Amino acid sequence: MARKAYTVAVVGALGVVGTEMISTLARRNFPVAELVPLDVASQAGKKITFQGRIWTTKEAKEGAFKGVDIAIFSAGGQASSYLAPFAVNEGAVVVDNSSYWRMDPNCPLVIPEVNPEDLDWHKGIIANPNCSTTQMLVVLKPLHDAAGIKRVVVSTYQAVSGSGKKAMDGLRDEAAEMLSEGKVSTCRAYNQPIAFNCIPHIDVFQDHGYTKEEYKMVNETRKMLSPDIKVTATCVRVPVWYGHSESINIETEKKLTAEEAAAILSKAPGIKVIDDTVQEMYPTPLMSDHEDLTMVGRIREDFSVENGINLWCVSNNVRKGAALNAVQIAEKLIERNLVK
Amino acid sequence: MARKAYTVAVVGALGVVGTEMISTLARRNFPVAELVPLDVASQAGKKITFQGRIWTTKEAKEGAFKGVDIAIFSAGGQASSYLAPFAVNEGAVVVDNSSYWRMDPNCPLVIPEVNPEDLDWHKGIIANPNCSTTQMLVVLKPLHDAAGIKRVVVSTYQAVSGSGKKAMDGLRDEAAEMLSEGKVSTCRAYNQPIAFNCIPHIDVFQDHGYTKEEYKMVNETRKMLSPDIKVTATCVRVPVWYGHSESINIETEKKLTAEEAAAILSKAPGIKVIDDTVQEMYPTPLMSDHEDLTMVGRIREDFSVENGINLWCVSNNVRKGAALNAVQIAEKLIERNLVK
Repeated sequence: MARKAYTVAVVGALGVVGTEMISTLARRNFPVAELVPLDVASQAGKKITFQGRIWTTKEAKEGAFKGVDIAIFSAGGQASSYLAPFAVNEGAVVVDNSSYWRMDPNCPLVIPEVNPEDLDWHKGIIANPNCSTTQMLVVLKPLHDAAGIKRVVVSTYQAVSGSGKKAMDGLRDEAAEMLSEGKVSTCRAYNQPIAFNCIPHIDVFQDHGYTKEEYKMVNETRKMLSPDIKVTATCVRVPVWYGHSESINIETEKKLTAEEAAAILSKAPGIKVIDDTVQEMYPTPLMSDHEDLTMVGRIREDFSVENGINLWCVSNNVRKGAALNAVQIAEKLIERNLVK
Repeated sequence: MARKAYTVAVVGALGVVGTEMISTLARRNFPVAELVPLDVASQAGKKITFQGRIWTTKEAKEGAFKGVDIAIFSAGGQASSYLAPFAVNEGAVVVDNSSYWRMDPNCPLVIPEVNPEDLDWHKGIIANPNCSTTQMLVVLKPLHDAAGIKRVVVSTYQAVSGSGKKAMDGLRDEAAEMLSEGKVSTCRAYNQPIAFNCIPHIDVFQDHGYTKEEYKMVNETRKMLSPDIKVTATCVRVPVWYGHSESINIETEKKLTAEEAAAILSKAPGIKVIDDTVQEMYPTPLMSDHEDLTMVGRIREDFSVENGINLWCVSNNVRKGAALNAVQIAEKLIERNLVK
């Protein structure tokens, strides 16, 4: 039987995440009949190669989604807020990578390994979670199922690719300047230098001294995994190109030994356990370059509480943290027969 | 009245920390009558300028401490284990920066801002704590006095200078290679590349999956601050030259608001609070280059427990984490009349 194929729009097709989305569609042999690459007006007319054919970018605007089955958005919150409703009206199912729709009670927020069943009540827009939340929940879900998670304390080590191309160029130029001239470089991407530095500030500051990024980890976890889980987060930018790392401290209802936690994670979907203290093996962000899986290591009991586990997880923030999860959502929509 | 001056030996005088110790003695106008720079035999005969005079390095060995009042060691655990007892026998008080004597019940482990009274029971050797513990305890001490700390969850972001000159050269060469050739560099200082990477592995692995560095933060905190405080740590090396950063989650007996915690820290010795979310101000490791104080920011209530505080602290690991604290110990020894 011939497999059905779909018309797929990618909004923000020329950005860091959009580019990765298109290559993810190709790599996973997603059933694309027609690709509709969309971007801002000034980027219309650019050529993109996909599945051996040349596709031309068009302006993302009302009317651009006619005939589109699935529209994957990664063009920022403003574009998503304005254009996603048009896309739905024109007949597409929207998978949105921005933060705009994530906490909307009418939009499921989905990680296929965590809560695919939430896709069933979608009303046209499905939100893709924040990168730092996604990799954490891929790891927390199987542990929660096994032992009931009560509280999570997480500190992140986040790559500059999460801020887009300008930040990646900024890190490169700052690092080159510092190496050649031996002086602290001028800031190019953030309000402090990022080369050979750490910046405890991601997204804008909000109430109570937290950043929006830190609240995303709290609120998105509650929406997807359980409203009873308590989370506190400190989000930090580090001079790394790709791959967010997270030091996660987990308190559970039921006791889990480190061996039990490692065994559970080894069998869980989307995870690769790299954890061998004898061979000195653990994940690092450089290992995430061409990696779809969330890597976990340094799994150990936390002796400061009755039932605690510490671990270290690393995932490619542009893949699982953005493009890959969005494409996996689209795959699940098809699998569950949720695309018209 | 003329101030008394002392004969001061620095063991490991040519290393990263030893060099910083000598410049710290000069910067703080420490009452040095004679400097005795000591190092391994192959480094004997080297010239060092201090207080406008030239001093010649000699071999650190039995007999080298005759006439020395204070000997500050930073030449690794083996040198300290072997030579510190000779130094004491020859009449010196030893301030040792290695980990060798830290947990010895006969040796006080001291941070002048935290437990100067422990100097009073010294028997010749005083241990200088681990860099990552020192800056954490400078911050925890005033909060513990005010509210009683029950538990601490800490994740570190540690600079390569903590591993000495070879690691600093390694980071520079790896980063240059990666920028010019665009490929992942070969490892020069650690068992994974450190340039544009994070390595969750500092010092050797021990039991239960923890590293020695992580256990130092647990055990040294208990020895200096209180045996009842529960600590769990994840220690991570990041591509930063100087300045360790720490994301610290603190649970207290008594409630502290973020404002109260900030007010307490602002008045505490050895601390500079840099914390303004409106102006987007917080400490970063690059700010620690010429800084003696431990900088604290991102002070906020942790809403995941009844009485919790999150904060971010940054300190120069070669200064307060090593050389400065050792010299401050020597100053306190004099102040408390504990040098013969």
